[in-house]
Amino acid sequence: MLGCWRAASAVSAGSGWWAACVGGSRLLFSMAKSKFEYVRDFEADDTCLPNCWIVVRLDGRNFHRFSEQHEFKKPNDDRALQLMTRCAQTVMQELEDIAIAYGQSDEYSFVFKKKSRWFKRRASKFMTHVVSQFASSYVFYWKDYFKDQQLLYPPGFDGRIVLYPSNQNLKDYLSWRQADCHINNLYNTVFWMLVQRSGLTPVQAQDRLQGTLAGDKNEILFSEFNINYNNEPLMYRKGTVLIWQKINEVITKKIKLPEEAEEKEVEVTRTKTKVVPLHCDIIGDQFWEEYPEILAEDS
Amino acid sequence: MLGCWRAASAVSAGSGWWAACVGGSRLLFSMAKSKFEYVRDFEADDTCLPNCWIVVRLDGRNFHRFSEQHEFKKPNDDRALQLMTRCAQTVMQELEDIAIAYGQSDEYSFVFKKKSRWFKRRASKFMTHVVSQFASSYVFYWKDYFKDQQLLYPPGFDGRIVLYPSNQNLKDYLSWRQADCHINNLYNTVFWMLVQRSGLTPVQAQDRLQGTLAGDKNEILFSEFNINYNNEPLMYRKGTVLIWQKINEVITKKIKLPEEAEEKEVEVTRTKTKVVPLHCDIIGDQFWEEYPEILAEDS
Amino acid sequence: MLGCWRAASAVSAGSGWWAACVGGSRLLFSMAKSKFEYVRDFEADDTCLPNCWIVVRLDGRNFHRFSEQHEFKKPNDDRALQLMTRCAQTVMQELEDIAIAYGQSDEYSFVFKKKSRWFKRRASKFMTHVVSQFASSYVFYWKDYFKDQQLLYPPGFDGRIVLYPSNQNLKDYLSWRQADCHINNLYNTVFWMLVQRSGLTPVQAQDRLQGTLAGDKNEILFSEFNINYNNEPLMYRKGTVLIWQKINEVITKKIKLPEEAEEKEVEVTRTKTKVVPLHCDIIGDQFWEEYPEILAEDS
Amino acid sequence: MLGCWRAASAVSAGSGWWAACVGGSRLLFSMAKSKFEYVRDFEADDTCLPNCWIVVRLDGRNFHRFSEQHEFKKPNDDRALQLMTRCAQTVMQELEDIAIAYGQSDEYSFVFKKKSRWFKRRASKFMTHVVSQFASSYVFYWKDYFKDQQLLYPPGFDGRIVLYPSNQNLKDYLSWRQADCHINNLYNTVFWMLVQRSGLTPVQAQDRLQGTLAGDKNEILFSEFNINYNNEPLMYRKGTVLIWQKINEVITKKIKLPEEAEEKEVEVTRTKTKVVPLHCDIIGDQFWEEYPEILAEDS
Repeated sequence: MLGCWRAASAVSAGSGWWAACVGGSRLLFSMAKSKFEYVRDFEADDTCLPNCWIVVRLDGRNFHRFSEQHEFKKPNDDRALQLMTRCAQTVMQELEDIAIAYGQSDEYSFVFKKKSRWFKRRASKFMTHVVSQFASSYVFYWKDYFKDQQLLYPPGFDGRIVLYPSNQNLKDYLSWRQADCHINNLYNTVFWMLVQRSGLTPVQAQDRLQGTLAGDKNEILFSEFNINYNNEPLMYRKGTVLIWQKINEVITKKIKLPEEAEEKEVEVTRTKTKVVPLHCDIIGDQFWEEYPEILAEDS
Repeated sequence: MLGCWRAASAVSAGSGWWAACVGGSRLLFSMAKSKFEYVRDFEADDTCLPNCWIVVRLDGRNFHRFSEQHEFKKPNDDRALQLMTRCAQTVMQELEDIAIAYGQSDEYSFVFKKKSRWFKRRASKFMTHVVSQFASSYVFYWKDYFKDQQLLYPPGFDGRIVLYPSNQNLKDYLSWRQADCHINNLYNTVFWMLVQRSGLTPVQAQDRLQGTLAGDKNEILFSEFNINYNNEPLMYRKGTVLIWQKINEVITKKIKLPEEAEEKEVEVTRTKTKVVPLHCDIIGDQFWEEYPEILAEDS
Repeated sequence: MLGCWRAASAVSAGSGWWAACVGGSRLLFSMAKSKFEYVRDFEADDTCLPNCWIVVRLDGRNFHRFSEQHEFKKPNDDRALQLMTRCAQTVMQELEDIAIAYGQSDEYSFVFKKKSRWFKRRASKFMTHVVSQFASSYVFYWKDYFKDQQLLYPPGFDGRIVLYPSNQNLKDYLSWRQADCHINNLYNTVFWMLVQRSGLTPVQAQDRLQGTLAGDKNEILFSEFNINYNNEPLMYRKGTVLIWQKINEVITKKIKLPEEAEEKEVEVTRTKTKVVPLHCDIIGDQFWEEYPEILAEDS
Repeated sequence: MLGCWRAASAVSAGSGWWAACVGGSRLLFSMAKSKFEYVRDFEADDTCLPNCWIVVRLDGRNFHRFSEQHEFKKPNDDRALQLMTRCAQTVMQELEDIAIAYGQSDEYSFVFKKKSRWFKRRASKFMTHVVSQFASSYVFYWKDYFKDQQLLYPPGFDGRIVLYPSNQNLKDYLSWRQADCHINNLYNTVFWMLVQRSGLTPVQAQDRLQGTLAGDKNEILFSEFNINYNNEPLMYRKGTVLIWQKINEVITKKIKLPEEAEEKEVEVTRTKTKVVPLHCDIIGDQFWEEYPEILAEDS
């Protein structure tokens, strides 16, 4: 198979695992096939507009039911959140040109660089690669996080794609998701306190919270449950930001120099780029000032 | 959570697993969020044209490498093919409105009904639900087929969507894929015989097959390897067709009638609709005459 | 300029009226231009799905105001309707592949053949050619219909494009427009009778018709104005259908045969295809049975 | 018709010139129509991505032939260029949110503001309004420029739409068109000199220019025809830029003050915004620095 050339179109039609090189014979042989080949023209071009940020957001399908069947801790389950982040890291490493990702609850957003030419910017490629890699990773890494909790069935995810022309639009998108995280988490934190500790039914808890403002909820948490919401874990309150960071790794290598008889241990520093999770605010300017390379023009 | 109503838009924005009902408080609380919410308007409508067949075709990503690393048998690996079909069955059962599916090698096509209103016919929903369900199933069911062969990493899949306005267009699409299966499988069968049995290098085998017609390849198989290609397994030569079939299940139930003292065993026949794999020709008319309901107007 | 070859792309960028052949020099010269040329990649592909009927519907822009300023007769102005039809005929003759057109009031729908490959089925080409040809014709032919009524300003039109996969969908589209014509015309006929003959104000006429059914309106017309609606002109009630018809033209030619001294007059019959206006029902089957070629598969 | 409310959808379906208010009766009456109304769902959403410049470029259809039939002066016809600009001005005045336009030869580009919400940013609306208004204006204003030269037939135009996310992209687009103008005009100027003055055939002129650089062409013009290309009219070399400018108009009004017996003439200065043609370079920075409001964020 080495040195075997295949036309892009043939590959895109999926000519298979062991598709040995198909040379001239294909041409002659495939006349029967050729009369059907017109159906390829029905495929629409879904190229994304150049010079825009490409965001793919993924959501768990029926994760309400899924989380109950797998006994997720309420309102936040560390295992579930960490598994989500593990999958998102895999997506960032396996796919090209993802500049930043943001996740909370059962959703994750992946931001592809403005200048990305990956798969000619075809929307279907971006969406399906993200969700399929995420979904297979979810099952693959499940046991690393859920130990004795068996995965009962393979979960589904849906995805969508959105373009953002300006950096401000992109920052506002991510702020929108983080604001959503905050609002839901504050609500859910109080709600489940009322249910789990005060013994309210879900309907009673809902009624109790009806019409309350953020301040009211903070007050309930503090006065009734002695909880300062601001001391809740950052991962719950802020969600998870994934960025690329240069990491210096110091490795010990054994080297034998020609003029010396003995092997010598040498410390070597290597710079690697890794996907690093942060749980910080991305609504204000500070984050973007600290990591200007994320939005940099040449990104 | 019971009786909790949530607007479609709120759900689509992914308000999370434990998102308890978010009532009036959300309205007041989320003013901070609302200034970012304009970013939702950037999402494009990707509704599929009504009254067209919707085909989603999925392909393994880098399955050439994947199949080598997992020691797939060449040119066909029964375990791999059966796992693909298991995943496709799951997709058909979990998703709505799939009338027929066809798979070969590392690809599978799913055909949604012309009249489907699933997710308002949004292309991104169809594509991402298919590939994510397929991908998670692939890892989930892997061990059922590959036993002692460990899965080394989570595989990726890509997907695309194509619309076909007429039944003839759809039949031609499926014929195109089956013709592709035939051409590739005949070629691969000879190629790997030359490599595995005759000891040719891949390049030599390729050169040998350069310019040969179907008849030539059949002849090589027969004269050199005593193989009648037409006796090769149908699954390899035709791929796999998945259709819905009514199955009568006879179950034995224990029933205790009020007037009787003892329980009684009764045989009950239930009609179920199941996804059934076939390995038959779908290029000719016979298949479509045998299963007219697949293309039926009300489908 | 004869024999001058120009690449399709150069033409599409509009290299102008007198653009003499631009040969090798262009290549060298245009290096300055080439650094801007990346902007072409931002143009999206808007190819229409194959094997679908392509309908372009055009509407007058602000024709309420336009008709008042040009003193159109109410509720129907023959000059205006005939001018619309004249423009539509020009569109059918100048553009390719229009199988049928239907017009009423200030709108016209043009139906391009399923198999049309005109301009590679690019939606923008279909829409803009239709509306620009229609608009220029409207001004060009105005004086032929409006005689002494001066055209005060150049009118605008908008257009949209819709695809219909099946013949039934297309027939239903045209039925929808003709039903719309009927409903509006019946209403308008009564409304303007009440205003013009009975002296009601528009608001009074509107109130009078509030909640009336078709039968009620027919009754008002008959009992109060002695008008049998069914005797109203077909053009008002049914709108205008434009189709292609073979017309035999008999021309008298003068021929001088070599062996004869005198010129001789000979009658020659030529078959021409012309755009013919009809004012008939297209909702029922009869029309489609009478003109089966309109929907014929090879059209 | 005053005080008559009509739903947007009814209007968009084109309910006609004299469509008097259609109240409750429509509801009852149109049951026959309603069964066809499903065809509206086939119309696709073609909303343009927000926060992008929207460019509509229009080109004359078959203007090579058109210009010959109407005896345009070669290589540039002032009447034709001025008519094009007159039409473009009309488009800018009649339509909303056009920030700048650029024209050369038989093409014109119209740039709609990034933030425009006109017709909900529907691409078909932008394209068809531009080309139809331009086309009707072309015929309407023809006689103002072509005097005794009769317009022989109504011309056609095509249009396309392109989005540009950043200001730099937009400036590069306009630079691309102006560079195209320059290249074509230099070529055409020499070409027609060779044909008209030196008596070369078009093919000979083409051969003569084959492989020449800009400098060579300037040299031919200067040495053979005593023409300094830089003294050629700016309109030919740079094309036409249309921008909005505030103009102070001084009008003389007759005013009669109550306490005075006589009418008095008073000069009143009014500020108006007008579309002004310029023939300047838009490739360099100077133009954009001089007119910063064109690209201003709030535009």
